[in-house]
Amino acid sequence: MNRLWEILQEKRIEHILLTSPANICYLTGYATAIETGPSPFAPLPTALAAVRGEEPTLFIADSEPLNDFAAGFAIRKFEGYTYEHPLRGLEEITKLLVNHFNRLPRSTVGVEMGSLPAFVVESLRSNCRQLELKDITFDLTQMKAIKDEDEIRAIRSALDLCDVGQAAVKKCALPGLTELEVFHEVQKAMEQVAGTRLPILADLVSGVRTAGVGGNPGPFRIAEGDPVIADIVPRRQGYWGDTCNTCVVGEPHKEQKRVFQGIESALYECIDRVRPGTRACDLDSFLRQQVTSLGGAYPHHSGHGIGVTYHEEPRIVPYNKAPLCAGMVIALEPGIYFEGKWGLRLEHTVLVTQTGAEILSQFRHML
Amino acid sequence: MNRLWEILQEKRIEHILLTSPANICYLTGYATAIETGPSPFAPLPTALAAVRGEEPTLFIADSEPLNDFAAGFAIRKFEGYTYEHPLRGLEEITKLLVNHFNRLPRSTVGVEMGSLPAFVVESLRSNCRQLELKDITFDLTQMKAIKDEDEIRAIRSALDLCDVGQAAVKKCALPGLTELEVFHEVQKAMEQVAGTRLPILADLVSGVRTAGVGGNPGPFRIAEGDPVIADIVPRRQGYWGDTCNTCVVGEPHKEQKRVFQGIESALYECIDRVRPGTRACDLDSFLRQQVTSLGGAYPHHSGHGIGVTYHEEPRIVPYNKAPLCAGMVIALEPGIYFEGKWGLRLEHTVLVTQTGAEILSQFRHML
Repeated sequence: MNRLWEILQEKRIEHILLTSPANICYLTGYATAIETGPSPFAPLPTALAAVRGEEPTLFIADSEPLNDFAAGFAIRKFEGYTYEHPLRGLEEITKLLVNHFNRLPRSTVGVEMGSLPAFVVESLRSNCRQLELKDITFDLTQMKAIKDEDEIRAIRSALDLCDVGQAAVKKCALPGLTELEVFHEVQKAMEQVAGTRLPILADLVSGVRTAGVGGNPGPFRIAEGDPVIADIVPRRQGYWGDTCNTCVVGEPHKEQKRVFQGIESALYECIDRVRPGTRACDLDSFLRQQVTSLGGAYPHHSGHGIGVTYHEEPRIVPYNKAPLCAGMVIALEPGIYFEGKWGLRLEHTVLVTQTGAEILSQFRHML
Repeated sequence: MNRLWEILQEKRIEHILLTSPANICYLTGYATAIETGPSPFAPLPTALAAVRGEEPTLFIADSEPLNDFAAGFAIRKFEGYTYEHPLRGLEEITKLLVNHFNRLPRSTVGVEMGSLPAFVVESLRSNCRQLELKDITFDLTQMKAIKDEDEIRAIRSALDLCDVGQAAVKKCALPGLTELEVFHEVQKAMEQVAGTRLPILADLVSGVRTAGVGGNPGPFRIAEGDPVIADIVPRRQGYWGDTCNTCVVGEPHKEQKRVFQGIESALYECIDRVRPGTRACDLDSFLRQQVTSLGGAYPHHSGHGIGVTYHEEPRIVPYNKAPLCAGMVIALEPGIYFEGKWGLRLEHTVLVTQTGAEILSQFRHML
């Protein structure tokens, strides 16, 4: 919050109203449940309102589980679920937000125009005419790129689950099983360690499907010799982890070994180049060149920041000329795909340190 | 779409712009992926724009999977994901929507003010000044309460998965396992039949936790004699199914048997009262009375409509004096909770037919 206040002061923004689950988690530690889509009880289940000089207030629907959150926030519950009268969660939170802001003198409120519902913005515009609303999505996006100690710990913890998941793939991807069956073992192993259900984004594809970069696990049966791409991305207490491995069921053939070793070397050499000052685009072009020299290419980014969202700044892409900074956490994921045949991708999540990079996951890629 | 046009004609609304995943699915059959929260690539991954007299257009980010949808819709893709320049999915879809609407003469567009992002509403307001925007959320909510044949088929299909899930609980809830371990068997069995990962909302609680109505499965070990509440709510191709059973691990005691039989009779007698013309509040008060006579109560609704959302109209609650109509699909779920001790809930999803009710799930509650 202090860092945010500093950034906003420069832009002459006095107050903030945040409505995206990711940014609320970033500032408060509160992770909204996301797995079943927008809640029928509260289309806007949480909002964070902060008036300069006051304790920031987190508004939470009473239908939402009250998980952990950082100290220093007032909690204000509103009625999301009730059986005594019609549901009006959106009206309830809007009323509270209008009351929170309409007492203020002429000033500027930073908002997220992509996640603020039309109903709320129009109520604020008509009931708080003295306030100017300014989109601060971009500022938050930039700010989130550099992680603090707590965040790095949270990402490590999510990556611990990725390690568990990758070990489960290596162990359970056997001839005769379907991708979905393998995924169930992966999910079970990870949630067992976490002690709770988890949101998990996962590519788990086998055989010729690996040529298509990714996809959800499906009822496709794995055969001896099949490659399996497992890109495993769980959210643990609001923070995402991300690793990818490609293994072969049974004995890999010579070409698979050559390509695996090539991509693995490219990844580790790329990690060697990670340090403050290295430009994102230079990592990107290094990886693409290496993959070209192996006789292939990949139609996606070379990597991305990760934190309260599974893809954020800094993007490791050709256009991004910004230098890396200490405290950034980036996933690097070179891949190679042979149309109609097979594909392979390896990924590690690393922390940019003062002098280089630290790989935050423990697992080692294994073909 | 035709029914919606009729309703809107009465209200002098010429065009529509829908932005909630549920209502888009309702009208087009397209089910947006929801399990990992708002997409970093497209904060508004889909929108449905319909101009009277033209083929309605479904706007879909190219980062979204293109699943099934009904015939009669034009598809317009926009760039959600790219690695060639900064992400601007929200700007892309907004530009397309503005172009779609700004050519129109003075007229009224029905929108969803709870899910339309502030960015889009303000762009429309400033670039299409000839258009009036009117919130049609309420009209859609009312309209969705009555299902057509296709929808009933889809709900049956989701309930087939609930049946599979309930059978798995009954089989796998064994002493020594945790709630989470039982849930993994349930999920595995359901997804195996569906052939794909599914969004699943689930209460799965055991022992004294059953006194607290519900909750996510956790690392709590089940012991001989424990009750287990399993309220299983999967989404299959956009439609949700919902059933709840309570079973006892091992031999139920006498009081559990008495209460189970009482709640089961209450549920079946309630279903006998379901027919066109019966008021929702009368079902609610009947169930509450029955539960009172068993010596308990429940702090929640008695039931709810179900379809593209897991809780919709008609709500079976004390204040709802509206009569049921043929074609409604309602989940009825009387429960009883003894503070600090245990609880029990049974639920069936039923279709209101011309003459009564049809239970859409095949499973039978078993203590």
